Amino acid sequence: MVAHTDTHTDTAVGNGVDAVVEKVCSDELPVHSLERELGDCARAVLVRREWLKRQPGVASAEAVGRVPHEGFDYDAVHGACAEMVFGYIPLPVGVAGPLLLNGKTYQVPLATVEGALIASTRRGCKAITAAGGASAAVLSQGMTRAPVIRFPSAIRAAAFAAWMHDPANLAVAQEQFATTTRFGRLTSCRVTVAGRYAYARFVCATGDAMGMNMVSKGVSAVLDFLSAGSFGDLELLGLSGNVCCDKKAAAVNWISGRGCSVVAEATIPGHVVESVLKTTVAAACELNVAKNLIGSAMAGALGGFNAHASNIVTALYLACGQDAAQNVESSQCITLLEPANGGADLHVSVTMPSIEVGTVGGGTILAPQRACLEMLGVAGAGQEAGSHARELATVVAGAVLAGELSLLAALSAGHLMRAHLAHNRKPAAP
Amino acid sequence: MVAHTDTHTDTAVGNGVDAVVEKVCSDELPVHSLERELGDCARAVLVRREWLKRQPGVASAEAVGRVPHEGFDYDAVHGACAEMVFGYIPLPVGVAGPLLLNGKTYQVPLATVEGALIASTRRGCKAITAAGGASAAVLSQGMTRAPVIRFPSAIRAAAFAAWMHDPANLAVAQEQFATTTRFGRLTSCRVTVAGRYAYARFVCATGDAMGMNMVSKGVSAVLDFLSAGSFGDLELLGLSGNVCCDKKAAAVNWISGRGCSVVAEATIPGHVVESVLKTTVAAACELNVAKNLIGSAMAGALGGFNAHASNIVTALYLACGQDAAQNVESSQCITLLEPANGGADLHVSVTMPSIEVGTVGGGTILAPQRACLEMLGVAGAGQEAGSHARELATVVAGAVLAGELSLLAALSAGHLMRAHLAHNRKPAAP
Amino acid sequence: MVAHTDTHTDTAVGNGVDAVVEKVCSDELPVHSLERELGDCARAVLVRREWLKRQPGVASAEAVGRVPHEGFDYDAVHGACAEMVFGYIPLPVGVAGPLLLNGKTYQVPLATVEGALIASTRRGCKAITAAGGASAAVLSQGMTRAPVIRFPSAIRAAAFAAWMHDPANLAVAQEQFATTTRFGRLTSCRVTVAGRYAYARFVCATGDAMGMNMVSKGVSAVLDFLSAGSFGDLELLGLSGNVCCDKKAAAVNWISGRGCSVVAEATIPGHVVESVLKTTVAAACELNVAKNLIGSAMAGALGGFNAHASNIVTALYLACGQDAAQNVESSQCITLLEPANGGADLHVSVTMPSIEVGTVGGGTILAPQRACLEMLGVAGAGQEAGSHARELATVVAGAVLAGELSLLAALSAGHLMRAHLAHNRKPAAP
Amino acid sequence: MVAHTDTHTDTAVGNGVDAVVEKVCSDELPVHSLERELGDCARAVLVRREWLKRQPGVASAEAVGRVPHEGFDYDAVHGACAEMVFGYIPLPVGVAGPLLLNGKTYQVPLATVEGALIASTRRGCKAITAAGGASAAVLSQGMTRAPVIRFPSAIRAAAFAAWMHDPANLAVAQEQFATTTRFGRLTSCRVTVAGRYAYARFVCATGDAMGMNMVSKGVSAVLDFLSAGSFGDLELLGLSGNVCCDKKAAAVNWISGRGCSVVAEATIPGHVVESVLKTTVAAACELNVAKNLIGSAMAGALGGFNAHASNIVTALYLACGQDAAQNVESSQCITLLEPANGGADLHVSVTMPSIEVGTVGGGTILAPQRACLEMLGVAGAGQEAGSHARELATVVAGAVLAGELSLLAALSAGHLMRAHLAHNRKPAAP
Repeated sequence: MVAHTDTHTDTAVGNGVDAVVEKVCSDELPVHSLERELGDCARAVLVRREWLKRQPGVASAEAVGRVPHEGFDYDAVHGACAEMVFGYIPLPVGVAGPLLLNGKTYQVPLATVEGALIASTRRGCKAITAAGGASAAVLSQGMTRAPVIRFPSAIRAAAFAAWMHDPANLAVAQEQFATTTRFGRLTSCRVTVAGRYAYARFVCATGDAMGMNMVSKGVSAVLDFLSAGSFGDLELLGLSGNVCCDKKAAAVNWISGRGCSVVAEATIPGHVVESVLKTTVAAACELNVAKNLIGSAMAGALGGFNAHASNIVTALYLACGQDAAQNVESSQCITLLEPANGGADLHVSVTMPSIEVGTVGGGTILAPQRACLEMLGVAGAGQEAGSHARELATVVAGAVLAGELSLLAALSAGHLMRAHLAHNRKPAAP
Repeated sequence: MVAHTDTHTDTAVGNGVDAVVEKVCSDELPVHSLERELGDCARAVLVRREWLKRQPGVASAEAVGRVPHEGFDYDAVHGACAEMVFGYIPLPVGVAGPLLLNGKTYQVPLATVEGALIASTRRGCKAITAAGGASAAVLSQGMTRAPVIRFPSAIRAAAFAAWMHDPANLAVAQEQFATTTRFGRLTSCRVTVAGRYAYARFVCATGDAMGMNMVSKGVSAVLDFLSAGSFGDLELLGLSGNVCCDKKAAAVNWISGRGCSVVAEATIPGHVVESVLKTTVAAACELNVAKNLIGSAMAGALGGFNAHASNIVTALYLACGQDAAQNVESSQCITLLEPANGGADLHVSVTMPSIEVGTVGGGTILAPQRACLEMLGVAGAGQEAGSHARELATVVAGAVLAGELSLLAALSAGHLMRAHLAHNRKPAAP
Repeated sequence: MVAHTDTHTDTAVGNGVDAVVEKVCSDELPVHSLERELGDCARAVLVRREWLKRQPGVASAEAVGRVPHEGFDYDAVHGACAEMVFGYIPLPVGVAGPLLLNGKTYQVPLATVEGALIASTRRGCKAITAAGGASAAVLSQGMTRAPVIRFPSAIRAAAFAAWMHDPANLAVAQEQFATTTRFGRLTSCRVTVAGRYAYARFVCATGDAMGMNMVSKGVSAVLDFLSAGSFGDLELLGLSGNVCCDKKAAAVNWISGRGCSVVAEATIPGHVVESVLKTTVAAACELNVAKNLIGSAMAGALGGFNAHASNIVTALYLACGQDAAQNVESSQCITLLEPANGGADLHVSVTMPSIEVGTVGGGTILAPQRACLEMLGVAGAGQEAGSHARELATVVAGAVLAGELSLLAALSAGHLMRAHLAHNRKPAAP
Repeated sequence: MVAHTDTHTDTAVGNGVDAVVEKVCSDELPVHSLERELGDCARAVLVRREWLKRQPGVASAEAVGRVPHEGFDYDAVHGACAEMVFGYIPLPVGVAGPLLLNGKTYQVPLATVEGALIASTRRGCKAITAAGGASAAVLSQGMTRAPVIRFPSAIRAAAFAAWMHDPANLAVAQEQFATTTRFGRLTSCRVTVAGRYAYARFVCATGDAMGMNMVSKGVSAVLDFLSAGSFGDLELLGLSGNVCCDKKAAAVNWISGRGCSVVAEATIPGHVVESVLKTTVAAACELNVAKNLIGSAMAGALGGFNAHASNIVTALYLACGQDAAQNVESSQCITLLEPANGGADLHVSVTMPSIEVGTVGGGTILAPQRACLEMLGVAGAGQEAGSHARELATVVAGAVLAGELSLLAALSAGHLMRAHLAHNRKPAAP
């Protein structure tokens, strides 16, 4: 099997490409708008590759040729997912499952380059499924956007906050928001004041979309309305003022949630803990306290009371066309392990307050990513608004539950093994 | 151009695959070890796809067929990067540049599905390069691992900490560490005590590797040595005790660094701010304070004093075979904008204390990802140990600098436009 | 003037005290209940001092005699503010003012042992008053208590959260809460779920009391009701589950507020900045960004974006009978300085989301502390419920505004002086 | 016994005071320098009280008279601890003990207005002492100061950091530091870079003083030296840049320590847990995990993994002349409870990384506060430099250990009682 790179597609570059490349290199054709200029996205990629090979900033022209480019639907990408495209990066995708969750079975696609991650998560799924499955509940759902607004004085910022916090006025804002979208709905707004700055954190229902763009548009309309009315003195400095808080580790998401807040749990029988996970209930529980609670507390963690939630979130996001850059807050998670049934069994849970997912829009429009969503049965809009996004969020939590269980078991098994060796090392009685 | 999926490769599945699939489905052949059993990784993938289509947890068998699989080097993946592989997920990769950094020009590959990200970063690169380039410095370099160790008492944990903090004893630990690796070197160790638990955060030079495995092995040797000697009462509960702190938002990385700590800066002439970035020095600076400093402070951010560093870090990591799950802490960043030269120009900087990168091992062994590193001129081990990893870290910071500059400019330009409209909206004097 | 200590009160200890001391030392009389046993609180103190002098854990019996005890109303303390009392610790109290705030003038009492603090705060008051005064607004008011409740499963904890978040059910809870108090009122409740644990953060109006006891009682009634009804499976593990969050640095208070959330501001004319504060608008502003925004961000601060709010909060709390141990969160504060009027003047603000104060109950029942509240005109219950507590909270913020202004000015003046010296150090032109 | 207030000291105000008051009110005599002008601190206080009664900002002149003033050593306060003094605020001081710690018995003085605090702490002491005592260890000791320094560029800031981190240069800095103090010694310095700003966190041994002033002076000398030498381009914007971090909740103290880092522990026999603490080992342990670990994690706590450390720290600081405003970070604490000896007994520990105490200087110069230190046997400088400060820090930790134990027991006993009642409520079997 050969990589789809220039080494075997040289002939395809043929017809007229060279001439176009010349034009691009001499700035007659702008390299960023080749798709539009040539009216052929795949050809634009071919030309851009040749252009790229001749750029001074490229240490190895030959290496450009080794980035694959064939067999990819560049039309879907154009104007939606990426610019200046010169090929694609393939990530291996594997499957962890079966995962029995809320009575339904899933095979979870994970795209990653970290060895052992999929195998380990799969082992966790096996333990959960052998235990009769996991349960998950969505605690809340809502995408947020918090513009930064400046007033002439702190007193005015306080007046704005008071206005927004009055339930009667929320209705007014909702009406304005609704003019911009059929799917979105403003559900609440909390204003944080800092001197004369106000950060209005709008929370919105966005159907099955992750929803940031939808929210931004709606929020903009609300502010235009207020600016033309009672708050003519507001200055909208930026549509995002970082209290949203997108793609940054921030307490506001951990405390107030963003996207879907989900909790998932399972009770693993002691015999499964031993046969599948190769550890004991006691060893797993004591490691969890020592590492995920005490260790993270000492590290000054913010929402990082878990073993490796980020691994599973990132891999699942990449497979399913989600925004992997959001894993900063989407992987906030507290993992708890406790003895159950008098110590015979193991209760495990993960609580994740800010899983930001969507099953329409963004990277989900790309065929391979959409195929992964279809495998899970959650592609596109759900019957009920947001139901696919919510189900995807529970799958994220369920997969994290499996991943946590397996890694904690492995680490604690290491301890058990060392303890065993230490015991055997001791001299026999004379 | 057609996607490399089952729809057009059905024939290829032919010879004997069906029989093998039967065996897998009836558990005669374990599905996770097909690569080893069949001795052909590509064929293993074909078989696994068919098996997967028949699994109860798969909502759409047909969708499995739409995940691409041809033209991928599964041999490279096997035993190193992923398990239970049934295809690959292609991510579009574009290029942002030229970026002039420390006197060298780069074309930065970014793999993403977020529209406008590459174009925006490219605009930032343009501004920086027009300004004569950016500078970056590596402040420190070192991978960390902090096992959780339990002692019979807090007094013993304190004794262990005192022992490790004695410079003379560090040499002893270094010697043990060195027995496990030719490339790695233990540079320091700081012990955090919590009651009778001790979290020994070992900091290590790991050459051009990201280095977590190397460090784990070395740390294990040190602890074995201590356990057999003066600290026979130590119990190693887990090789990672979350004070490391890997893939979780934690203050310890923000304060003490992990991987490469880098600062990058540029001074953008006022005319470039206006012509390329379409904003003004004053508007950009005031937005940065309002959003990235005050806004993030109000949000309770931990190392999240930036606009969207995570976007650029994730896209660059995905293109270059880095571990995208680490962007949780790798994207910790404070972005500062200030007027320079009496307000005529704009000084911009990003400071990123925990960029975890490697140019050997991990996902860098895959050809496409390695090609991206080669484009940057940093593939494989550098002349001087760690020099390629350090250079890659500066490119990360430089690209983030570009991305921050461009987004902040765009947001502040929105403000300027609104201010302009508001001004024009006012009735003319009679 | 002589300290009111045993050195000059030996005679007073006379009558029969020795005999009682003997009984206490021989355990016939329990030392902790002397007040009740003797029916005379002052005499109980005398006896306890003699007992204390003979205790093995006392390195210097003579030193006990040097702790003052005369002239103190021990009856007020007994059963309310302290136990095992053997005297009192006098803290010097000074006054900072006049502080013109919301059109009213205050002389602010501050009890402290930190030299220069009162003088510095007074200078800040002078600048504010010369500027025409400061304004302050209360953004919200409400005391919180979050019991930790355990359910058999996470799904049940989620059901409990859903129940509490339904507005209709809040009314039910309010009714139960109301059975326990005439003054308090439950205003909202937000449940944080972590696995099968639920932390229900009840927010309550508590009139002019700081209100923790009132809230605890009301919350207890609500939980008893729920426990007897739909949530018979709830286990109340502890009335405080640390999501309240009392006397600990926690994001939940910074984000959601506790007690009074207050913002205060003033615009200081440039000439006052120079004549009273001895600095310049530019120097003060640039220090504030460098220290209170960037510096605190780098330090991983949580609500600590100020210079020394804790100093003023603590001194004012000690003077006015507040709980100084709450200064951990009460002193959370972001201080902002900006040029105003084109750089001619200085705008300064402080935003403090969790000022926990009361003007009835707690230490306010002691005469000296109550006298300080009376000086401010806010002793006892206000005309409108909570109005005195709110006014006291604005005085706290106003005093912090003064303290911040003065210290930042002093630090930046140091910079100006050094810059001046550096300039003069340079050789004159030939 | 009557309070020492103006109601019974009117006669004392007599001689000539009225005339002086007139002068002060007409601005002939400055009210802030009465001590110097009159050459009699007590008389200055008398005059200031009369002046204060006539100030417009005083809502009740009569209330001023009710703030006690007699019997206080104003000479000690003048020029050292407070300004504009008009009396004193007495805080009741009680004693908790005996506390057996490191083989020594203490009676711990606590000054507070929070009812039940002393009694509760005393109960904790009783349990600890009955258990054979607690152990404590000082993990590190060092006061910190981090000036904010600005350079022309980030590259220069990075160069400065590199210089400071070179061990050879530390010696140079130490030499400069040593020129300013006989007692202090610079032990290390870590520079945090943020763009072109550098925050150099100097760590210093300051003997038995809390040491902030000593450190500031020494740091100033180091910077003057560097500024005159290789770093002529450094601008010292402020001697404190908030990375110190004084009186603010910040991760840097939690991670790196400030003042004394102390761990204390005890093992309480099961029968003592039951007889003295009225709870069970299991109930206390499970509450601690639910509240101090999980609850605080959910609250976004920073170093606040305890029940009420701030209460004990504040009360002990107030009794012993420490700076109560520092309890923000001094009370950072993680409390751990675990079953010991197979569940029969209870192991409890507190870990407190930033206890800032001193036994010379500051409020310790006041006689009553010094008397409390003498009771503990730690007044003034210790035999070995810093030994008294260290011992005081262990007493702080030991008292917190007692306070935590007692409150957690009380809370968990409440749970046990409710569980018991619930059990009894159930109908008897027929």
